[in-house]
Formats: sequence, C-alpha cells, structure tokens
Amino acid sequence: MRQWSEPLKPTPIQYLGKCGSGQEIYIKREDLLGFSFGGNKCRIGFSFLRDMEKKKCNYLITYGRKESNLNRVLANMCRSANIPFTVVSPDAGEEKEASTFNSMLVGQMGGRYLSCGKTQVAEALEQVFCRAREEGFAPYYIYGDSRGLGNEAAAREAYHDAYGEIRLWEETHRLEFDSIFLASGTGMTQGGLLSGQTEAGGRERIVGISVARGQEAGEAGVRRYAGDARIPVCFVTDYICGGYGQYDEDVKRTIRMVMEDYGIPLDPVYTGKAYSGMLKWLKAHGSGGEKVLFIHTGGTPLYFDYLQSGKDGTN
Amino acid sequence: MRQWSEPLKPTPIQYLGKCGSGQEIYIKREDLLGFSFGGNKCRIGFSFLRDMEKKKCNYLITYGRKESNLNRVLANMCRSANIPFTVVSPDAGEEKEASTFNSMLVGQMGGRYLSCGKTQVAEALEQVFCRAREEGFAPYYIYGDSRGLGNEAAAREAYHDAYGEIRLWEETHRLEFDSIFLASGTGMTQGGLLSGQTEAGGRERIVGISVARGQEAGEAGVRRYAGDARIPVCFVTDYICGGYGQYDEDVKRTIRMVMEDYGIPLDPVYTGKAYSGMLKWLKAHGSGGEKVLFIHTGGTPLYFDYLQSGKDGTN
Repeated sequence: MRQWSEPLKPTPIQYLGKCGSGQEIYIKREDLLGFSFGGNKCRIGFSFLRDMEKKKCNYLITYGRKESNLNRVLANMCRSANIPFTVVSPDAGEEKEASTFNSMLVGQMGGRYLSCGKTQVAEALEQVFCRAREEGFAPYYIYGDSRGLGNEAAAREAYHDAYGEIRLWEETHRLEFDSIFLASGTGMTQGGLLSGQTEAGGRERIVGISVARGQEAGEAGVRRYAGDARIPVCFVTDYICGGYGQYDEDVKRTIRMVMEDYGIPLDPVYTGKAYSGMLKWLKAHGSGGEKVLFIHTGGTPLYFDYLQSGKDGTN
Repeated sequence: MRQWSEPLKPTPIQYLGKCGSGQEIYIKREDLLGFSFGGNKCRIGFSFLRDMEKKKCNYLITYGRKESNLNRVLANMCRSANIPFTVVSPDAGEEKEASTFNSMLVGQMGGRYLSCGKTQVAEALEQVFCRAREEGFAPYYIYGDSRGLGNEAAAREAYHDAYGEIRLWEETHRLEFDSIFLASGTGMTQGGLLSGQTEAGGRERIVGISVARGQEAGEAGVRRYAGDARIPVCFVTDYICGGYGQYDEDVKRTIRMVMEDYGIPLDPVYTGKAYSGMLKWLKAHGSGGEKVLFIHTGGTPLYFDYLQSGKDGTN
C-alpha cells in the first residue's frame, strides 16, 4: 500500500449573508477538501482507509448507487494507494446512458463491479469476500460485516474531528453558531458531529435534513454512527420530495440562487435539497439574527450531471 | 452594484512527491479559490471588478471562446453583483451540441452574446460599447479599449499578489522553490507573477508552458502584463501539440495519472497540457532534487467536458 494524498484541512468557513427570514448564513466548504472533489465522504473515506490499514486489510469492498459520492472517493483512494476494490451495486448492470460522473470516475479508477438486487446484498457480499480471500487478500467492507454492521467508529471519527475544527474556528473568530445544518442520509456525518459535540460540550442545534430516509430509520442511523443509542437527534423529514434523488422547483431555485449569488455549486440529490430544506425550516422555526452554519458536503460531479441534464431549466 | 463573495485566499500548497526525473513537485491549488470553480481567472476576474468599480463603470464586456474559464468566472461575478454583461465571441453562433460546461454556465448567468468573426472584433466591440452607452451604462471592456489595450495593470495585480502568497508560504515552511511552472496563454498570470517576483527580489525560474501562442507573441504578452518591456521571460513553446485546445497521448496520460494518484482534476486545454509539458521540460533540463511548484490554474468545468467526451479512453 503506498501513501495517499491527505485531504486539505481545515476547510474554510465563509459568510454568505442574511437569508430571507433573517438568519446569518455561514458555509463550511467541505467541497474544497481537495482530493477527488472533496466532500464529507472524502474525510470519511480516509477514516475507513486508516481503519483498514490498522486492521491489516488490503482489499476494499464498497456498496452503493451510481450517484454515490462515497464510492467515487473510495475508488480514487484505492487507485492512488494501489488497493484492489469491488463495488457491489444495484446499478452495476445498467446502461452507459444512465451513468453519472461519479460512476464514470469509479469506472476509470478500475474497480470491479458486482451487480445485485437490493434484497441480495448479503449474498453478493459473501461472494466478494470469498473471492477476495481465495485470491489471497484480506478484505474490508466499509460497512463492517455482511449485514452492514461494525465499522461505525471509523466513520464517526471523521466528523467528530470536523466538529473540533468548527469549534476552533468559532474560538478564533469569537462567534458561536446557534445551529448547524447538513444533508443527512446514512447518518455518518450527523452522527460524527453529534459525537464531537457531546465530547466538547457544545450546545448548538445540529439539524440533519433527510435526503431520503423516514423519521425512525433516519434517527436510528444517526444514533448508530454517533455511538449513542439515546442521544437526541434532530432529523427533519419534511423536505424529502418523495424519495432519494427526487427534487422539486424549490430545490432547483435554491441551486440556481446559490450558484448565481455565491458561485457555489450544490446538487439536487444532497446539498441543494438540504440547503432548500434549511431555508424553509428557518422560515418556519428560526429566530431572527441566529447564526447558522451550513455544511457543504460536496458532490461537485453531481452538479455537473445536473447541468448536463438541462433539468435546471436554463438551457 | 451589490457586494460579491471574495475568493478564499490564500490557497493551499500541497506536496505531491518526486517525479520520474527526480524533482520534488508541489502544487498550489488555485482550483480551490471557492468562487465559480476557482482558478487563476477567479483572482483576475475580481481584480477587473475592483478596477471597474474604481472607474465607476457598471456594464461589463468580455471576449473569448466557449472554453474560456475567464468568461465563466466573469459571468458569475456579474450575475452575483447584478452587473449587465455581454460576451463577444467567435463561438456565439454555434450549435448547442458544441457547448462546453463553461459556456453553459455563461448562458445560465444571463449574459448577452454577440457573435463575431476573429477579424471583426474591434467593430463588434464598438457596437456593444455604443449600445451600452445608449442604454445609459458606463461600459468596461476587460482588455481595455477596442484594440484590447489598457487594463493590463488590473490583471497584473492578481498574480502579483499571489506571488506574495507563495513567498509567505516559503518563509513559513522554510523551503524555497527553484522553479514555478504554469499554463501560459495571454500572459496575464505569468506577467503578474514576474511583476511580483521583481518587486520581492525573487530568483526562482518562472516557466510558462504555452497552451497556444508561439514564442514571440507569447513573450510579448507576458511582458505586457508584467508591465516591463525588457523583463526576461521563460515561455516554452515545445508542448503546444498543434494549437489551442489540441493535445496528445502524453497529455491524456498525465491527466489520468494526476487524477488517479492525487485525486486532482486537470484539463486538456490548459492545466493538463502544462503539467505534461512541465514533466518533459524537467526531464530534459531539470536537475535532481530541485523543488518545483506547479500552479493549478483551475478549469474544473473543462475536466468534466473531457470526462463527458470519453476521449480519455476509459469509457
């Protein structure tokens, strides 16, 4: 395993201005971590790689859809560190036309693909584990065992540390955020932040805007990654727009507005949906003058998919 | 004119490792300036906007091709600051299929387009100037007058200052670069760096790898932007690959290698061509152990054009 390029930390926090309902919006530019288009999955991916090295594994197995930012970053890391890897994916057998920039990048990085239905994940994983072992490798699955459990601590570390970065920035700038907003999916990022907050005794509201999951599954995911089954979780499911990858006119308007006003790309699957949800949530529940930090969790390749699709209504 | 988001400076300098011919390669991540995908044209664009404000102008006119990073950044800045703008372009009348992500973004930002042949630029500019004045605006053309002269000082300022950033980094890290490499086109960036170097008494070699221009025109451009008609200029024309936007197998291999090894996107029009040229130049002329800084001048949208085209040979 050869050494890889570490992400460029800490990422900048930038003041954007007052939003319509009177809160002061700041943004943490995790999209600028500098490795493979950055994003939260860049920090998390490096945590997994360190964990993998510690456990003396040398073959990586990932799971996910073609929009996955995590898989793109992991594929790039594995390529750079010369680690063989396989992606188990429900999209693996689909047409080239249905590819995304993330899946094209996974392909370029030379991983193996294994197609599997959503209900056959455990069997597919067993198959990949076996094959890797037969070839003399020690495989590592990013979600742990074949039921997807066991590596929560590695994922947690990434945003546990990022929470520390935010605190340090607050101290340096003599400013305290009243709330932190982010796109929440599996709960890795929100769980990590909550774990960091607990350790540091922080008190801001950490609000996950769900990009897909319902209340119960969402909260459970966040608690699992926080490593605390009873921690209070603010997981907002009001802005899902019908499911993963779906979005409405407000999301489109938000993406357009943030690009035009600040030159910052958001995407309809994660960050645009979350930013739009945050603005609505603040209008309904926020108080004027609050200081709000939005975590830009990356996804630049998804922005270009969106631009390419012409669905922003501008072409 | 409303306030715009400033670029996030200073940008990080990152160590990449030793290249094949024994030099230590560092990279300054100007692609992470954080406004409209960053890049050298992000700093330069903001210099123009400040100059425009100083001169009490309120209408921006730009010129360039559909690959232009400068026009994308300027369009985004104008949109964000609510400044009307017009792009005079030899590509304006072309088919949508021939569009690039940069030109799509210019379109989204709502600028007017004026198509013109390469020999009718001065007439086209006069026409835009007149129309803007008739509408009650005070127009500003980024290259100055209708012959393209007069705004060199505004462009120079950007990389004059960036040179200062590099010096500061060197002092902090107790390390001196023996040479600085970058893609060189109009000469704005290289000219600015040389002007900063002269003021600071720096002695490293500043090597511009030409992306299009021949020796004489290239050197003249750099001197013009440096503001010194006799300054020695190292402008290398050996790696042009036949002209603007053209590239060879070595450029393709370089783009692939830099993405795979470091997760850093380069493009075939500017940065990939320059990085590939740098490696060849160092092999032929460098000495082992030299410390070399490559300036990543941005162009993320061009990377995605390239990926989309499938011309990298991986799809």
